[in-house]
Amino acid sequence: MTQAFITPSRRVRITPWYNQVMSAGAKAFTVYNHMLLPTQFFGAREDYDHLSEHVQVWDVACERQVQLKGPDALDLLQLMTPRDMAQMADDRCFYIPLVDGTGHLLNDPVVMKVGEDIYWVSIASSDVALYAKGLVAGRDMRVEITEPDINPLAIQGPKSDELMVRVFGEEVRSIKFFRFKWLAYQGVDLLVARTGFSGRGGFEIYVPGPSYENGAYPVLAINLWDELFDRGEDLSVAPGCPNWIDFMEAGLLSYGNTIDAGHTPFEAGLGKYCNGIDTCLASEALSKEADEGPARMVRGVIFDSDDFVPSVLKDWSILDSTGKKIGLLSAASPSPHVGTHIGMGTIEKSHWQSGTFVSVETPEGLRTATVTDLPFR
Amino acid sequence: MTQAFITPSRRVRITPWYNQVMSAGAKAFTVYNHMLLPTQFFGAREDYDHLSEHVQVWDVACERQVQLKGPDALDLLQLMTPRDMAQMADDRCFYIPLVDGTGHLLNDPVVMKVGEDIYWVSIASSDVALYAKGLVAGRDMRVEITEPDINPLAIQGPKSDELMVRVFGEEVRSIKFFRFKWLAYQGVDLLVARTGFSGRGGFEIYVPGPSYENGAYPVLAINLWDELFDRGEDLSVAPGCPNWIDFMEAGLLSYGNTIDAGHTPFEAGLGKYCNGIDTCLASEALSKEADEGPARMVRGVIFDSDDFVPSVLKDWSILDSTGKKIGLLSAASPSPHVGTHIGMGTIEKSHWQSGTFVSVETPEGLRTATVTDLPFR
Repeated sequence: MTQAFITPSRRVRITPWYNQVMSAGAKAFTVYNHMLLPTQFFGAREDYDHLSEHVQVWDVACERQVQLKGPDALDLLQLMTPRDMAQMADDRCFYIPLVDGTGHLLNDPVVMKVGEDIYWVSIASSDVALYAKGLVAGRDMRVEITEPDINPLAIQGPKSDELMVRVFGEEVRSIKFFRFKWLAYQGVDLLVARTGFSGRGGFEIYVPGPSYENGAYPVLAINLWDELFDRGEDLSVAPGCPNWIDFMEAGLLSYGNTIDAGHTPFEAGLGKYCNGIDTCLASEALSKEADEGPARMVRGVIFDSDDFVPSVLKDWSILDSTGKKIGLLSAASPSPHVGTHIGMGTIEKSHWQSGTFVSVETPEGLRTATVTDLPFR
Repeated sequence: MTQAFITPSRRVRITPWYNQVMSAGAKAFTVYNHMLLPTQFFGAREDYDHLSEHVQVWDVACERQVQLKGPDALDLLQLMTPRDMAQMADDRCFYIPLVDGTGHLLNDPVVMKVGEDIYWVSIASSDVALYAKGLVAGRDMRVEITEPDINPLAIQGPKSDELMVRVFGEEVRSIKFFRFKWLAYQGVDLLVARTGFSGRGGFEIYVPGPSYENGAYPVLAINLWDELFDRGEDLSVAPGCPNWIDFMEAGLLSYGNTIDAGHTPFEAGLGKYCNGIDTCLASEALSKEADEGPARMVRGVIFDSDDFVPSVLKDWSILDSTGKKIGLLSAASPSPHVGTHIGMGTIEKSHWQSGTFVSVETPEGLRTATVTDLPFR
């Protein structure tokens, strides 16, 4: 396919590390939360191989924080999610499906309590702040909703601990999976979490950008970037970004790609996070699926194909042996680990069992395929 | 600056005319409402020159429609806008600033009544549907909010009437500025409006895409595209897109570029649309500015510069003669019409009068500048 350039503008925001990322050779970008997100440095496969062995620094500033502040902030979250917010410990990175009143997904963020009655909702790409503002205006709740200039920087790959220790000290090692600590960097306490959008482990550091608190930290983000590269040279540290091959093999969900506003949390395979439905605005809408389970669900698919790897730009049909449509494939990738192509799609209950033979209608023709559990690796 | 490619994906949606636009040679894209929007075909200046003389067909499917349907739909709009909705005639394309409870801009769409208690809100790039859903959930209003697969196709340039007449008949000529009619195309009534994001006149056609009404019109969008090019050959019809130079000379506002969630409607220069404040949720928040006017406003700026034309990726400071910051420039362009560079920025009242000398802090250094009224042409 012919490739086209991306046009930078103020509306599609650059990140604090834009110059660093461009200098490091970013070849392509996507747009996420109205902000640039690099998608490739040395090549999809080259980036994947490096990520599986070494450590990478990712500019994921586009994982914007919706800050909820005020006495009703927790209640607001509970209205928007079917997950029981009471189970959120103070140091948790709490993954919550967010739903509208009809029980359909608005987003699937991670929430962290960053102060008394203050929460950061680290969002996928949709303007969740607008839904929250509408709800707050409609119900007259006491919550202030802002987007502070906080920019996640991800450190991912098997050597992440080693690199992070060199910058933040040994305490890094004690951070458990999906937990966070506040660790000092150049005199400023930064939120450091053991999270990230790879299947190789690592951290996300929440870095104040130049607009945070009236310019209190004009160069902190740049200093941190530089120091990570300086101290990681012998670890083969490299610039990176969420890698589509790794992401798919890890079976991670991507709002807009594999799940969207057409899915309920149960259909997205997030039923285990639906333990607080009663206090959610969608309690009635979700009650049937809570009892009986969904009629379709996001599942893995393995399919043979020759060397082509088109991106899924529009859903591909998934067919049963009679040619009847029983699902939609919404993402695909080659998989070095599986040795063939993998995909994720939403498949009807009649055909979602692991091992079911189906076929996938790719732009290059029909391919035989097998339904499987997630993740692939 | 080095250029990077854009990565297509399902999350950043393609339009019904994606193949046509790529075949026609689109060189670059931006992302708008989670959808691709071409930004250049033959070159910014070449596209500008062609637009000023001939007629272009623009894929602006990214101008998504938020459909509000139900007995409370009009009330919902009135809660969200300071403009008096009672003044909206049935055939109007009604431009309305949308604001949150604090009086800050959420979007600046055009609204059309497309049926009894059914409205299409043709939005700029923010997820307005989410704010509306939050408000509806919070206040328990009877409004169904969807995004139907309706894709605007713009016909812009001085020969637009001639081309449109060939496809839709003479009735096209009777459509007044910012009014619409339903005109038949291949047996389907399409909304045709005399609107569009150029300063050269033209129309927007609201075209059902392949997902509209369960696939009722699988190829209508493509047929229309093809017919416009077939019938316009002797008019030098060409593919186009909102052209930044033309857009700037026309002084058009762009949510995310020249106005954003930091502006009130008064600050955006939209005070004349604030005649229905009392019934808007932001009535209290906006009352002071309604009485006294804003303290800063979006204004034009003309500045000399050598041949460079950087995009404004982050606001440039606007300074007074003592070096004090008195505004922020958020957009700039060369202007063939003015003969030098033009910009738009938000400037404090003390310095917003036309003819005021200021300076602009460009990445290439300080440039002397003059404040001026909008538009530039």
